[in-house]
Amino acid sequence: MLRERSRRLERFYHYYPAVVAVITARDGDRVNVMPAAWNTALSFDPPLFGVAISPKRHTYGLVKAAGEFGVSFLPFEMARAIAVTGRTSGREVDKVALLGLELEPPLALNTPLLKGAYAAYECRLEAVHRTGDHDLFVGRVEAVHWDPEAFPEGAPSWTGMRPTLYLGSDRYLVPLHLPEVHLPGADLARELREARREA
Amino acid sequence: MLRERSRRLERFYHYYPAVVAVITARDGDRVNVMPAAWNTALSFDPPLFGVAISPKRHTYGLVKAAGEFGVSFLPFEMARAIAVTGRTSGREVDKVALLGLELEPPLALNTPLLKGAYAAYECRLEAVHRTGDHDLFVGRVEAVHWDPEAFPEGAPSWTGMRPTLYLGSDRYLVPLHLPEVHLPGADLARELREARREA
Repeated sequence: MLRERSRRLERFYHYYPAVVAVITARDGDRVNVMPAAWNTALSFDPPLFGVAISPKRHTYGLVKAAGEFGVSFLPFEMARAIAVTGRTSGREVDKVALLGLELEPPLALNTPLLKGAYAAYECRLEAVHRTGDHDLFVGRVEAVHWDPEAFPEGAPSWTGMRPTLYLGSDRYLVPLHLPEVHLPGADLARELREARREA
Repeated sequence: MLRERSRRLERFYHYYPAVVAVITARDGDRVNVMPAAWNTALSFDPPLFGVAISPKRHTYGLVKAAGEFGVSFLPFEMARAIAVTGRTSGREVDKVALLGLELEPPLALNTPLLKGAYAAYECRLEAVHRTGDHDLFVGRVEAVHWDPEAFPEGAPSWTGMRPTLYLGSDRYLVPLHLPEVHLPGADLARELREARREA
């Protein structure tokens, strides 16, 4: 399948699709909003979540100054709003007002979250690591907000979340129903080893 | 929607689903394999890709010693193999032999990749950042391998890739067909501002 190979990386997108983390940051009396497709969990204990932010972004300075940020995971119904926040700057426009976004008050910190999210984290900024043309902002999750219908029995549900999955270049996947499979790796490994022994 | 909130984070999974990055690392004459659902791109220029690896993992020491690692993105057809690599340790079993995985020779570095991937990166280890109970391994992408059918016209295709999306707790999504939408945020923002001015 890997028929092409190159040392020159012209584009860099093979890791998509990615769930968009929508970052909120206090900007004086306002709240600024930007989407970060480059995000990942980093630690269970303590719970750490990381987002890569370019120094060109208005949000970059806001988060550094505030020492905290919000992460909202929005359902696909809000993908248009996410797309707009990604292609406008808080230096020029109040995105919350432009899009009529509603804010959710924080529980532990001072940065509001976005109403309409199926889950959201309040993150205290723990570290900023230089990583090329972006910096990685490491947040310690001080509080979590969630819609119980998106996490029935405490586990993420695709149809409950209807997450916004980004494919790059302003493209998004429509989260129609997908089946899921349970692949208990430990049991499968045991079966494989037994089959091998018997062979 | 955010009806529940808590300062106590009992589980930490709201950011799923995530495309699994399958890490390869040289282990003497062998190659060890582990899946990393916690991964993200970090920089376009230079191209940097990050994966969070627990110090408990055999791969952790192998990558540190080698100063490089491979990242293979495998289609859903290989999800069972991915699940097994996640629940076994290279200290106890040769996963490549157990699963009958085929290796793809590297182009720029020394770590093989996995045949059957729709895309793969050869990463030189640039930095390791402590992040709680995992460390973030930052790799500079020195070569990329890809299946052109997964990236028609140079853009990721959901149906071409059929990526392995992890939901946590040994659960995976079956990548049946999903439509996609193009949401040009800059155009949408312009329309919104014009509509506002006219109102």
